[in-house]
Amino acid sequence: MVSWKNLDELKSYEALQKDVTPVDLRLAMQGEAGAERVGKYFVPMAAGLSYHYAAKAVDDKVLECLKALAEEAQLSEKYQALYEGEVINTGEKRLVLHQLTRGQLGKDVLADGVNKRAFYVREQQKAADFAAKVHKGEITNAQGEKFTTVVQIGIGGSDLGPRAMYLALENWAKKNGCFRMAARFISNVDPDDAAAVLADIDLPRSLFILVSKSGTTLETLTNESFVKNALRAAGLDPARHMIAVTSETSPLARSSDYLAAFFMDDYIGGRYSSTSCVGGAVLSLAFGPDVFARFLNGAAEEDRLAAEKDPLLNPDMLDALIGVYERNVLGYSATAVLPYSQALSRFPAHLQQLDMESNGKSVNRFGGPVNYVTGPIIFGEPGTNGQHSFYQLLHQGTDVIPLQFVGFKNSQLGVDVDIQGSTSQQKLCANVVAQIMAFACGKDDDNPNKAFAGARPSSIIAGDTLTPEALGALLAHFENKVMFQGFLWNINSFDQEGVQLGKVLAKKVLAHQTDGALKAFSDLMGI
Amino acid sequence: MVSWKNLDELKSYEALQKDVTPVDLRLAMQGEAGAERVGKYFVPMAAGLSYHYAAKAVDDKVLECLKALAEEAQLSEKYQALYEGEVINTGEKRLVLHQLTRGQLGKDVLADGVNKRAFYVREQQKAADFAAKVHKGEITNAQGEKFTTVVQIGIGGSDLGPRAMYLALENWAKKNGCFRMAARFISNVDPDDAAAVLADIDLPRSLFILVSKSGTTLETLTNESFVKNALRAAGLDPARHMIAVTSETSPLARSSDYLAAFFMDDYIGGRYSSTSCVGGAVLSLAFGPDVFARFLNGAAEEDRLAAEKDPLLNPDMLDALIGVYERNVLGYSATAVLPYSQALSRFPAHLQQLDMESNGKSVNRFGGPVNYVTGPIIFGEPGTNGQHSFYQLLHQGTDVIPLQFVGFKNSQLGVDVDIQGSTSQQKLCANVVAQIMAFACGKDDDNPNKAFAGARPSSIIAGDTLTPEALGALLAHFENKVMFQGFLWNINSFDQEGVQLGKVLAKKVLAHQTDGALKAFSDLMGI
Repeated sequence: MVSWKNLDELKSYEALQKDVTPVDLRLAMQGEAGAERVGKYFVPMAAGLSYHYAAKAVDDKVLECLKALAEEAQLSEKYQALYEGEVINTGEKRLVLHQLTRGQLGKDVLADGVNKRAFYVREQQKAADFAAKVHKGEITNAQGEKFTTVVQIGIGGSDLGPRAMYLALENWAKKNGCFRMAARFISNVDPDDAAAVLADIDLPRSLFILVSKSGTTLETLTNESFVKNALRAAGLDPARHMIAVTSETSPLARSSDYLAAFFMDDYIGGRYSSTSCVGGAVLSLAFGPDVFARFLNGAAEEDRLAAEKDPLLNPDMLDALIGVYERNVLGYSATAVLPYSQALSRFPAHLQQLDMESNGKSVNRFGGPVNYVTGPIIFGEPGTNGQHSFYQLLHQGTDVIPLQFVGFKNSQLGVDVDIQGSTSQQKLCANVVAQIMAFACGKDDDNPNKAFAGARPSSIIAGDTLTPEALGALLAHFENKVMFQGFLWNINSFDQEGVQLGKVLAKKVLAHQTDGALKAFSDLMGI
Repeated sequence: MVSWKNLDELKSYEALQKDVTPVDLRLAMQGEAGAERVGKYFVPMAAGLSYHYAAKAVDDKVLECLKALAEEAQLSEKYQALYEGEVINTGEKRLVLHQLTRGQLGKDVLADGVNKRAFYVREQQKAADFAAKVHKGEITNAQGEKFTTVVQIGIGGSDLGPRAMYLALENWAKKNGCFRMAARFISNVDPDDAAAVLADIDLPRSLFILVSKSGTTLETLTNESFVKNALRAAGLDPARHMIAVTSETSPLARSSDYLAAFFMDDYIGGRYSSTSCVGGAVLSLAFGPDVFARFLNGAAEEDRLAAEKDPLLNPDMLDALIGVYERNVLGYSATAVLPYSQALSRFPAHLQQLDMESNGKSVNRFGGPVNYVTGPIIFGEPGTNGQHSFYQLLHQGTDVIPLQFVGFKNSQLGVDVDIQGSTSQQKLCANVVAQIMAFACGKDDDNPNKAFAGARPSSIIAGDTLTPEALGALLAHFENKVMFQGFLWNINSFDQEGVQLGKVLAKKVLAHQTDGALKAFSDLMGI
């Protein structure tokens, strides 16, 4: 039986605060000692990736304390409880089963009278079969023409994750002959979002995926109506152009308004749903079911690594532990996510939701207080673009911000140019390597304006090429990291009560049931 | 003569820390008192916008102290010194003249033997004339076909600002019959960036703008070669497809490799260059010179407002002062920028550069120490998308993060749908209003997991529609805010020495002049 305790009730956390001297990265990363750290401080991940933490402010002593913390906090046991179907989402009294969409690590999980792994596999197979029929031209528009574009209508987890994954694999798929259909996304309730997408696509040959677990998300239903109006105005039957991804109990599940419906359930939070049919339908349509299956395999392999008890062999757990050390002991308030890969341009936006919505909490999983900070701010942009933007503050600002780099040896498209003796891809890789060292070691200068304090910690996840498997592993790594951090902070990473109040007040505004400042602001905005 | 002092040398700053009781927003925004604050705490901006700070933790007493701080810090005098051509960029010993690209507030500024306002106007006119010829088909490709797409090649300030401005006006221009050419952007040295853009455009009908002030930016020159290779491979002459935006002294300025060259100079930093030819060429080509002129007018009008001495009548100065109060007195480490406008989807990324690269500094303008924190983290995504993502942490996380909302009464395209008694645009506006109040007042609940602490400050910039004028005003507002904050912190907001070390180390990596950890990481990445 696992025991849920607040972080500051753990002896090993006290030890981490009292017995550990923070490592001076500026010294530690110098010379051959620095090279030794690089050779020693890494953990293999799935799909050929590896997690490198030589430029984090840790040493063997810190790692020993973090290992003790992992044990005392029962991180492995809690993960097992989760994937074997305990009610880990205490706020909503739900199981947490997103790992089950890509593999099974423990005993069968039965809920709602079914084996949940079998349920997820069945829905994936339905989506795969549907996608195959669309690709073969067995499912077409009323004129018998093939669909060429798929448009996902969804918001939050139904948008950010699938969109980031699509962008991550779009060029890879084109290069590798797997590109089947272009995907677009409509998310914002701002009518200009839907209008712009609709104006830019070949409407008669577009297939829409409505994604809403409850079938009641106001933004999404509003955009569905927007799209249906456009289809009707073009003389098209919306029911021939639309599928649904929803829960079996939602009003959308058995509606004749959709060509097909693929099911998720309450055990998968929106931000963890990229490997469910929420990502599966759109990615299978865009790249074919085989590519989606490879993406799932990468995630499943990473999930298996996350079950390793020793954090020094478990990249997801170790990343989580170092993050808590930085957040709670060293006192850093944010983490920048910096992928040196244009394909990952929206991956930071997905992680922003995944992490901040999961762990931006002020009460523990039982509603009790927590006397320590929890989830940090997550932000980021692709390198090298970020270098010419906000890196100034990262290097010379007054706050230290830990950095999470991601980099690949090879580009996806393989088209390159040699300038001044190196390719673009080599320049890209040289830059990420250079940044790690610049942040860690800094530089003295007689001119204080040109001096770099250094001692700014970073880690890098490195790989050969961003393939579907690597992307799956990368996604699962961060999902698992966030989960382990939630366990450490003793919070519920799987609900999001913080989004409710705004919804309630917005309804009041629309119903004109306002007074005071709410009415005054409503008047200002002309509502 | 202005006097440059560190913030903590100012008596009014001491008063702000000692004599002021922070306002409890949770109480202040309740009932009729809250409505009174909304009616009272706002300042008109240019182009019909207004800055509302009722939901900031200020009252008359705080505002009085901030006003005293503005006076003692000589914010107006320093702004005047700047726009009249003093060497405000002390690090690089340069004038700071971006305001002069859109208007003239004070006496003539002479530098390099010319009147700088006349110089900027001349270059704008050259770009306008060039754009008009392209639109009329007087400048075409070798086949005599009109150019249909313009592609900007640049990074950092040559990319983020112009890209954000283009996206902000793309739909507006389509709606208002001003859309002339589609614009695309190549920035990252990742070869997949350029390759993907090139694969997606009609190359024979594309015009490229190479943007590099020095003419030596490695990423940009690399991407130029990438593009030229592609043009040649398609049997096209690069010199017929390329223009340059650069400084008059750069190697690109008089090269026959370009159809034309438009000039900027060292007095305009990259992140402040959207209103120079860096933004002017691409925006004039995309939307016509008249739209760009309207954009400049909005910015010029805001610049004039920024010259007002009383911060209560000066939205840019007041925003800056409140930000410093939040950062240095209340101790908040970040600001989230949340535009309720899909058109502003990349505006936060531009502000992230503008703010963090300008004010992420640890020494004062003379190289001396600063004993206080400077520029905050800036991040954000458009609402309502963010609501379904990271707002959880903003509402219920352990750190307070001040919020900067932006909203417009009307959409740009004017296509809308009525669902459950309201349009999408009304829902969008209702949401931003609801969020302001939810953040300010919070909500008690017997279930602590459903309780909201409130007291999370926000401001909103509100307007009717996002027009070119409004966009110009919005851009100038933040440029001026960042400038005033730099004056308050006594730092140089106009250099970026923090980007240098990474460049130096990347060159070493590419030259294989590495040892220790730098070599070990280089080996890891296969360089």
